[in-house]
Amino acid sequence: MTAFSRLVRFLAKDGRTYYGNAILPRGVNDISKAKQAHIVKGDIFGRHDVTDQVADIRLLLAPLAPEDVRTVRCLGLNYAEHAKESKMAIPQFPVLFYKPITSLSGPTDPIPVHPLAQEGTGLDYECELVAVIGKRCADVPESKALDYVLGYAVGNDVSHRDWQLKRGGGQWSLGKGFDGWAPYGPGLVSSSLIKDPQTLKIYTKLNGKVMQESSTADMIFSVKKTISFLSQGTTLLPGDVIFTGTPQGVGMGRSPQVWLKDGDVVEVGLEQVGTCTNKVEFGSKQGPRL
Amino acid sequence: MTAFSRLVRFLAKDGRTYYGNAILPRGVNDISKAKQAHIVKGDIFGRHDVTDQVADIRLLLAPLAPEDVRTVRCLGLNYAEHAKESKMAIPQFPVLFYKPITSLSGPTDPIPVHPLAQEGTGLDYECELVAVIGKRCADVPESKALDYVLGYAVGNDVSHRDWQLKRGGGQWSLGKGFDGWAPYGPGLVSSSLIKDPQTLKIYTKLNGKVMQESSTADMIFSVKKTISFLSQGTTLLPGDVIFTGTPQGVGMGRSPQVWLKDGDVVEVGLEQVGTCTNKVEFGSKQGPRL
Repeated sequence: MTAFSRLVRFLAKDGRTYYGNAILPRGVNDISKAKQAHIVKGDIFGRHDVTDQVADIRLLLAPLAPEDVRTVRCLGLNYAEHAKESKMAIPQFPVLFYKPITSLSGPTDPIPVHPLAQEGTGLDYECELVAVIGKRCADVPESKALDYVLGYAVGNDVSHRDWQLKRGGGQWSLGKGFDGWAPYGPGLVSSSLIKDPQTLKIYTKLNGKVMQESSTADMIFSVKKTISFLSQGTTLLPGDVIFTGTPQGVGMGRSPQVWLKDGDVVEVGLEQVGTCTNKVEFGSKQGPRL
Repeated sequence: MTAFSRLVRFLAKDGRTYYGNAILPRGVNDISKAKQAHIVKGDIFGRHDVTDQVADIRLLLAPLAPEDVRTVRCLGLNYAEHAKESKMAIPQFPVLFYKPITSLSGPTDPIPVHPLAQEGTGLDYECELVAVIGKRCADVPESKALDYVLGYAVGNDVSHRDWQLKRGGGQWSLGKGFDGWAPYGPGLVSSSLIKDPQTLKIYTKLNGKVMQESSTADMIFSVKKTISFLSQGTTLLPGDVIFTGTPQGVGMGRSPQVWLKDGDVVEVGLEQVGTCTNKVEFGSKQGPRL
């Protein structure tokens, strides 16, 4: 039995959907460049095997099948420079909110903007390191926390600042939970390949222009601190997805402010993982691909 | 094929867990009084049948099996008198937050209070009408919204005011998401029996004393308005659980304030549905029953 190192879920050229282990050319580690994968059989959270069977990738999908996702947690204000640009104090504890599972989508899916989310202003991007929990855990000490990570992805915590900050009664959920507002991927890089998630470059490009550029070293609560804290009195389950906050450079923090428009292309990238590239679609009626 | 009217999930005297249709004595409609149920076979969200097979109930469980739950949404400040006691304005839009699925527990499960939740003060109860979505839907008009309800339960949105309001950076999630902090049940009453969810008495008793007593008629956003609004641009799935807010009388709103203590027994009740009775346990190590 061989465990995956770069897990992808994909539509293959044979028209079927598989879990696979991405095949990358030597020297390339952006999973979005994978054209083929070894099919993975078994339970991705438990006993599974990377088989010899190779499939051609037609389309990379969200790394976890919808039925494999449990709860989606997100942190706010988790990079020191972003807290500063937001004119917020450095938080004493992780600032936690949630997204519904229907917000998750794949690395090249469009970001649909419903008419409700076209009201007001403030459509914004947030590149984030995403950690997926692989094993049930509770009350985990920091020193063991990374043992429970199945793998890392990059994601975009798409946000509408008016709905998030002005129309939600102070709770951020309304402005962050629309269908397809949490694209992530392009795959999950095993914690056997990323031993230290606090040394990775992370960025956003909007229509090719760099808007956010930082390092996960700037996180206030590291991935291991986050998992340890969130697991206190709260059981984390295999398939829990954690968006770990965004660095400075969001549209809201810029002068002048920059808001996403219909047709914009947003790329979020994380070193050693790859990129998600999603087009903003005001007319899209696409619901979640569940 | 007969559809359920009062769905229960239970541990039977034969040691197995079943979905069932509660059998109640004539004139009784509190599901927690059920001693037997007709076993339900099939998909509770789709084709299922109430069989002739009767089982003895040993213990009522959370109405949905954990694998059948998708996203847990909750409303804040959704009763006019409660908004007043909280010294908050009547919200213009539903105030949305989430709980993790691990917070759900059954109608008689203990409420475990982790050491982290013993810090500070402010452990509180909130009786709520709970609506469970039965059919996938998006952009539902109010006039059709109740057609997507599988059934109604009563629940307790257990909350820790310090963690909710002072330590969470303004987001309520930290103080509401601990394991077992959303007991609900005792079963799901089909919308074929409850045609109008806005006419039901709702209450909390703390150690037998009435603390909250109101009617769902005082809701600011009715169940149909809530479902219609939450479904705009956001697909609701079978197994989504919605806590619809609490009326006045919470511990925080009283003078002097009343906080839950180790050993307290909290009963939440909803007319035509029944009661959940849960004991506060500071020493409990119980995780979610998943």
